[in-house]
Amino acid sequence: MTSDTRSEVSASAPLRRLTGMRATVLHGERDIRLDDVPDPAISAPTDAVVRVVAACVCGSDLWGYRGVTPTREPRRIGHELVGIVEEIGSAVARVSVGDFVIAPFYFCDNTCANCRNGVSTSCLHGGWWGSDDRDGVFVDAAQGERVRVPLADGTLVPTPEVPDDALVPSLLTLADVMGTGHHAALSAGVREGSTVVVVGDGAVGLCAVLAARRLGAARVVAMSRHETRQAIAREFGATDVVAERGDAGIARIKEMFDGIGPDCVLECVGTAESMDQAIRSARPGGMVGYVGVPNGGAELPIRTLFGTNVGVNGGVAPVRGYIEEFLPEVLSGALNPGLVFDLELPLEQVAEAYAAMDERRATKVLLRP
Amino acid sequence: MTSDTRSEVSASAPLRRLTGMRATVLHGERDIRLDDVPDPAISAPTDAVVRVVAACVCGSDLWGYRGVTPTREPRRIGHELVGIVEEIGSAVARVSVGDFVIAPFYFCDNTCANCRNGVSTSCLHGGWWGSDDRDGVFVDAAQGERVRVPLADGTLVPTPEVPDDALVPSLLTLADVMGTGHHAALSAGVREGSTVVVVGDGAVGLCAVLAARRLGAARVVAMSRHETRQAIAREFGATDVVAERGDAGIARIKEMFDGIGPDCVLECVGTAESMDQAIRSARPGGMVGYVGVPNGGAELPIRTLFGTNVGVNGGVAPVRGYIEEFLPEVLSGALNPGLVFDLELPLEQVAEAYAAMDERRATKVLLRP
Repeated sequence: MTSDTRSEVSASAPLRRLTGMRATVLHGERDIRLDDVPDPAISAPTDAVVRVVAACVCGSDLWGYRGVTPTREPRRIGHELVGIVEEIGSAVARVSVGDFVIAPFYFCDNTCANCRNGVSTSCLHGGWWGSDDRDGVFVDAAQGERVRVPLADGTLVPTPEVPDDALVPSLLTLADVMGTGHHAALSAGVREGSTVVVVGDGAVGLCAVLAARRLGAARVVAMSRHETRQAIAREFGATDVVAERGDAGIARIKEMFDGIGPDCVLECVGTAESMDQAIRSARPGGMVGYVGVPNGGAELPIRTLFGTNVGVNGGVAPVRGYIEEFLPEVLSGALNPGLVFDLELPLEQVAEAYAAMDERRATKVLLRP
Repeated sequence: MTSDTRSEVSASAPLRRLTGMRATVLHGERDIRLDDVPDPAISAPTDAVVRVVAACVCGSDLWGYRGVTPTREPRRIGHELVGIVEEIGSAVARVSVGDFVIAPFYFCDNTCANCRNGVSTSCLHGGWWGSDDRDGVFVDAAQGERVRVPLADGTLVPTPEVPDDALVPSLLTLADVMGTGHHAALSAGVREGSTVVVVGDGAVGLCAVLAARRLGAARVVAMSRHETRQAIAREFGATDVVAERGDAGIARIKEMFDGIGPDCVLECVGTAESMDQAIRSARPGGMVGYVGVPNGGAELPIRTLFGTNVGVNGGVAPVRGYIEEFLPEVLSGALNPGLVFDLELPLEQVAEAYAAMDERRATKVLLRP
């Protein structure tokens, strides 16, 4: 069946009857459940419905889980998924029913002025999983059985064929953490020969190590005191590991780089402490690339930055634009960011997945509906 | 006379007897005087003594003059100068007695790790006019008759010959404002085809317009409500002038650039208001290059920056590294940043120079000792 025929079939005749599904709902602090929810359905002609093959838990999901961000009412959660297209709207042309697709952690048209500038996270028509789209219609979150995907042509990236199951973890990282780590590296200006320090040993920090080496960094220091993560960092190409933090960590880093610090620091945590460490570690004239969702009240210290000419660049990573670049490398096995998943659970055990990440028993948990 | 012979002569035999000189001293709020002070003398073998041919008043000098920065005790002031080398220490090899030289607004060795990285304002052995050097010996400020120049080989850039007097204003801008405007543009990543907004119509802002066009910017908007400065901005290549400020200015700018804003915003003021305007004017994924000395208590709003992927880069401009690049263009007349000087006074009238800038009767005042 060609893409065209599949497209025509599915636009006119959904493949199965919709009868409700299960999806993850955050009810309050440390209260995460798999609830029965309405099945998604095509709402706009640019929509698709995707059956989730794999989703996962993000470090940023823990802010709500831990109560750092209060949960005023139960809400659907999860923003990373790969899956199979089950249905498409009549205006969808670039993905077809049956396609295996990667969805970034947001939806976007991939054609507006901001998307064309490479900032699809600021898409003029885009939005976020688990909240309403621009038409006011609810969009499912990723930790569930199925999702409605707005702007499917812009949002979804299909693989050439349905990939081997062993590739699913690495493909799933392209939905967020691999692209986010790459964005930190790009934002910090990492290039051939750069010296780099990565603050944060979560999945994003580890992917930032991999991304920095891929971009040609000569030396990449992973800041980590966690043995398993140190091992992944080394596997990803970290040349050094530093366990010290705060002033001791900064002193160690300065000493490693001519007494002045590295060219680039990748901030992959989002706390006031980690950003302070990043800014004070960089050499004069260096750049901090940051992708950790800012948490806590601290703003950026302009006088320190001004005096040292350390720049700060980054933000919510426009990973949609990076997926096509990584895809051939992942499919060939040359790039294996899926190593960040050290636990896989069925979706039924989503509560255990959150607990394992919260207690740092797992770096990143893959969920199979 | 070759450079070598001049060097040997001067190292052993100063050309004139030192008998004291006059230099500008800030005594307190709006109390600026030309006082009798000790004549400079070679202190280290790497020193030179330079007779000031022209100096000027910087916007940042006004913070002290206006009492925004309190003056606890009388202090020498001024950091921009061109002059003639009168004496050199025995270890000085790259400048000679009789050379016409440009001094950046700080001194530096131009060889340390930070200088090699292009961040000579963070020179490991450098310092600031009007304060002590690393040996604890006082260094004259620029608004005087003569200065001792530490690290003369690194700090001073000689012209091939003593230039025509008409070139002095443009050469003097290489000591600070032209290089600082250029640093704002470089820090914001201005390149061929960039869209640029410049916040601030002081001498630095105007030079930033010139620098942005020189780097190939396709469109450069000067934010200014001051007719004389608007005219200089247009002469320097501004394609548009916007008089509105704050929210109205931002709305106007967004409208001019596809509703999203320009690629690059150059912040050349240093107040909380100007930085806020700069950050909120840039398009998502854009970059703010800032060189205005931060004044007032506001830090940088990390959530706004994170959400929009607007980066902030810049700081105290390492202009020493830019002088050689500009010099041929200034000497040939191709680049004429000296237009920012709209008042020239003898050093005796330094108080009037400060008053004229304080009251915005002059954009920038050139002083002749």
